[in-house]
Amino acid sequence: MSASGKLRARGRLQPSVSMTPRALMEGPPRLAGVWTARIITLFPQAFPGTLGLSLTGKALDQGLWALDPIDLRGFGEGKHRNVDDTPAGGGAGMVLRADVMGRALAMAAQGPAADRARWPVIYLSPRGRPFTQARAQALAQGAGVTLICGRFEGLDQRVIDHHGVEEVSIGDFVLSGGEIAAQALIDATVRLIPRVLGNQASTEEESFSDGLLEHPHYTRPANWQGHDIPEVLLSGDHGKVAAWRKAMAERLTKERRPDLWRAYCAQHDRDPDGDQEL
Amino acid sequence: MSASGKLRARGRLQPSVSMTPRALMEGPPRLAGVWTARIITLFPQAFPGTLGLSLTGKALDQGLWALDPIDLRGFGEGKHRNVDDTPAGGGAGMVLRADVMGRALAMAAQGPAADRARWPVIYLSPRGRPFTQARAQALAQGAGVTLICGRFEGLDQRVIDHHGVEEVSIGDFVLSGGEIAAQALIDATVRLIPRVLGNQASTEEESFSDGLLEHPHYTRPANWQGHDIPEVLLSGDHGKVAAWRKAMAERLTKERRPDLWRAYCAQHDRDPDGDQEL
Repeated sequence: MSASGKLRARGRLQPSVSMTPRALMEGPPRLAGVWTARIITLFPQAFPGTLGLSLTGKALDQGLWALDPIDLRGFGEGKHRNVDDTPAGGGAGMVLRADVMGRALAMAAQGPAADRARWPVIYLSPRGRPFTQARAQALAQGAGVTLICGRFEGLDQRVIDHHGVEEVSIGDFVLSGGEIAAQALIDATVRLIPRVLGNQASTEEESFSDGLLEHPHYTRPANWQGHDIPEVLLSGDHGKVAAWRKAMAERLTKERRPDLWRAYCAQHDRDPDGDQEL
Repeated sequence: MSASGKLRARGRLQPSVSMTPRALMEGPPRLAGVWTARIITLFPQAFPGTLGLSLTGKALDQGLWALDPIDLRGFGEGKHRNVDDTPAGGGAGMVLRADVMGRALAMAAQGPAADRARWPVIYLSPRGRPFTQARAQALAQGAGVTLICGRFEGLDQRVIDHHGVEEVSIGDFVLSGGEIAAQALIDATVRLIPRVLGNQASTEEESFSDGLLEHPHYTRPANWQGHDIPEVLLSGDHGKVAAWRKAMAERLTKERRPDLWRAYCAQHDRDPDGDQEL
């Protein structure tokens, strides 16, 4: 419920600007074993950004999770630390070089990140597999994640293939860089880590936790602009309230997301075209 | 190609903390007619955030688009400016009050925002219609958008219904608040506004612009870790390069996103199970 958040300075690791891998595991002891997002980016100053506010920010301050931005610029070529070049075959824009990203990935793979089963390497890209709540839950069970934030036209395909980098998309739209997508992935994951949200129960009733969109919410005042709160919610009958919410969640899912509705029905052995109790 | 971004202070409008609507249209003349994202949020300090970096940040500084965060707290109830209350019918968490949000929406509807056809009101919610590149393009053609960032369990349903608020989702996952989702929507939209990206051509070849995922990219060095750039890209034959890229984009889409592939085939009168030239 804390809504007093301000942008707070905090002692996050400084982005490296040297070619020498800094000793990633020599951080403060509170980081040991804590879920960590390591982020390869040209804009390390984008982090924590919004993640530094509200409950995710408080949890970051408390050491319940950690952020480790790695400045891609530090791995660039030559005096100007170039990280990109023109696309082979021609065309607009620039492509992030395989050798530059390869060096950054080698550094990011140190420490607990070496265990790829518990620490995946993800490139945020609209070409990737769609990110889902189930994936957020799986990531939150792991030790951390390394996220590659693209810029320009994207990453040289060879470094994706060579390092077995997984492409993940937060949606069918194009961003000017991967940083906001990384923040979305981190936020969705971190809030599932125990103690990050004040009230763990609230993640159990929300959208997707049972394959359905969430039912509508109401709160005081009981009448607003001539609109009443549905009577059943004021009945005090917990069974009836639960049944109403379930029916509303099902109706909403069926109306708005036939794809989710079909998956839900298949899982619950129901006829997707059948009538609902309402 | 600018990658020199630092977090820069800029003269964005201050969030209101009074009940008196400030004269929204009395801003600096550079704002007149510029695409504007008006954002109702408990965390106005989250903006511009990452949007203030790189090309979107430069364009914001140049007045090619504008940000207008509105602090929901200023519309709260009583001495403590409460914005939320417990859910009717019981359950975990808190719900944003209809009356509080209604007052914020009334203020946000002033000026050019009164024309809802050119200035939609969107609540970022996992229950919403999925945000797409096509929607970003449509939004970029308009005058602006008002975005509602939820927190806690969400918004009282009555204010959504009463104000005809559209629900839009950036993906099938749950965030701790709508701010990062708002930034994703704004970034995807703003980069399509003329002159925001240096090179307009680069938005015409990217993912989704033709209903396909984007082809792989390569750049120098020609050989990296034993991996060569595909020969066709070095051939200098523009026709062959274009054909290869199209075939790769089609193959990638078919493999990774059968849903997009079926839609593409329907639109291009093709058999989705047919062989591709590769």
